[in-house]
Amino acid sequence: MKALENEIVRVISRPSGIPTAENFKLETLPVPELEADQILVRNEWLSVDPAMRGWLADANNYASVRVGDVMRSLCVGTVIESNAATINKGERVMGWFGWQTYAAVKPEAIVQTVSASDLAPSLYLGVLGLNGVTAATALDKLGSPKSGETVVVSTAAGGVGSCVGQLAKALGCRTVGLTSSEEKVRACYEAFGYDHVINYKTDDIGSAIKAHCPDGVDIYFDNTAGTISDAVIRHLAIGARVIVCGTASIQSWDPPPVGPRVNRILLTRRARMQGFILFDHKDTYASYVSQLEELIRTKKLTYREHITEGIHTAPGAIAELYRGENLGKRLIRL
Amino acid sequence: MKALENEIVRVISRPSGIPTAENFKLETLPVPELEADQILVRNEWLSVDPAMRGWLADANNYASVRVGDVMRSLCVGTVIESNAATINKGERVMGWFGWQTYAAVKPEAIVQTVSASDLAPSLYLGVLGLNGVTAATALDKLGSPKSGETVVVSTAAGGVGSCVGQLAKALGCRTVGLTSSEEKVRACYEAFGYDHVINYKTDDIGSAIKAHCPDGVDIYFDNTAGTISDAVIRHLAIGARVIVCGTASIQSWDPPPVGPRVNRILLTRRARMQGFILFDHKDTYASYVSQLEELIRTKKLTYREHITEGIHTAPGAIAELYRGENLGKRLIRL
Repeated sequence: MKALENEIVRVISRPSGIPTAENFKLETLPVPELEADQILVRNEWLSVDPAMRGWLADANNYASVRVGDVMRSLCVGTVIESNAATINKGERVMGWFGWQTYAAVKPEAIVQTVSASDLAPSLYLGVLGLNGVTAATALDKLGSPKSGETVVVSTAAGGVGSCVGQLAKALGCRTVGLTSSEEKVRACYEAFGYDHVINYKTDDIGSAIKAHCPDGVDIYFDNTAGTISDAVIRHLAIGARVIVCGTASIQSWDPPPVGPRVNRILLTRRARMQGFILFDHKDTYASYVSQLEELIRTKKLTYREHITEGIHTAPGAIAELYRGENLGKRLIRL
Repeated sequence: MKALENEIVRVISRPSGIPTAENFKLETLPVPELEADQILVRNEWLSVDPAMRGWLADANNYASVRVGDVMRSLCVGTVIESNAATINKGERVMGWFGWQTYAAVKPEAIVQTVSASDLAPSLYLGVLGLNGVTAATALDKLGSPKSGETVVVSTAAGGVGSCVGQLAKALGCRTVGLTSSEEKVRACYEAFGYDHVINYKTDDIGSAIKAHCPDGVDIYFDNTAGTISDAVIRHLAIGARVIVCGTASIQSWDPPPVGPRVNRILLTRRARMQGFILFDHKDTYASYVSQLEELIRTKKLTYREHITEGIHTAPGAIAELYRGENLGKRLIRL
């Protein structure tokens, strides 16, 4: 039998800011021989996530990727060979298989088995994966939303943001989204049901937030940081919660950029600002997935996917994300 | 009977930054006639607190003082007349009686009755008052200290800070204090039992924090904000809690000063930064006072007082506080 070929995306340099295609190299290698206790996964879907910038930075990141490695990524694929007692050939799985066509990994790389046959497998990289579970976990645990509260979401049309907006709305909150184009504004109103949407490239953010949040902002789900967040934070309500989930608007943290100090606002509003990383919440992952699956089935939660075809579209995909060109969860179909 | 004279400190202008003697005027008036349900308190001790700057600023403060008012202040005094059913003449009380020698107030102005006869009444303005209860409440509720954790305190020798350091130490934490003079460094080691003390005027804060907090900072009790806090925050441990209790190092918040953005640190360390104002915690006030009284009686908690004599020393006292001239709780004895 002819040996299978494995196309991989290798990290060849650390980006100084946003990773671009130049930081990666596409290579063709033989598929590795399986070791004991490994499985061979044929990837069907690769994920592209804003967090990848952090993984590639050489700072104190929680999930650093080394130069020379295959790019770290969540993927959905099918097990085509198994030396592991717990995993069967033919199972569909979601996990840390990397930007490559075939992955020889240990079972620990699997985040979850994709068993629902009525839901599209790609959803497990988006609304039923990292994005949706991040939205549900952070909103619930760090935000503690209550009916009637005002929830502001930056990157409101994105993979995480669109889910946050819908979950908050389903809980009876007023939802206000911030996004970057008229196309995304429409998606926020029509698909994701926001009460108000602000185009931060054309609207005055401060006066728009003031108009749409007359009682202040109770929860700010922040995926951007920077000047967008500065404007929102000035309007925090007493007891507000700021969920720091991403910093997409900041090009580089070395040296750390400056902005208005938040201490006085946190103090006078008795507000809380807290960082969230999903990896800390593995114990509740499956339970949030089940909740989200049910919301999808009952049509209370919708999603958009932005798909490109072929692994050659992966190296430039992070930079595209940061240019705001995607509408919905960014995926690569193999 | 000759009418009693009341010496009052009136607010005559809003400060643009730190309040100085020029923002106040000392006046002599007749003691007001008591209305129904009022009590007349002869003040014995007046408090001077860093928070007064915020009360006098015309921003969104939680406890603004208007121009023309007697300066808002906690005091300890004795009830010398009572038209209120619930309060008896002769009782010693601590409450919002203002910078004046006599106060005609409703019973709601009382924060607590001072019933312990074995403890000095002035303590109810310091270690058994706003300062001690702020320290105990914020450290417990926002900090959740655990034995073995590293707790860093700014204004470590001050009224709140010295109490935080001792409470954290009593709970088995490593305590590191930041203060502004060699005299205060000595007080921190000798009186307040800190494990390490940093003089932020002469030491390099960043390298000192790194040396004294090898596993990072688990709790940062922040009374200063500004560059001192910037240096501490860079060394937060995973899961750290920053208690934003004061902003003493910032001269003015209008316009808001800039500093390094904290988002990335909060995110990568999954840290929490939260504002604390004691007024939100009235329901637990008495219980923390009881805990602190017991610690004083058993010599597990000590304190320093910086006392000046006479109401004429009040107008300049806030500026003195911000110049760092006091050692311990700032009080005025009448």
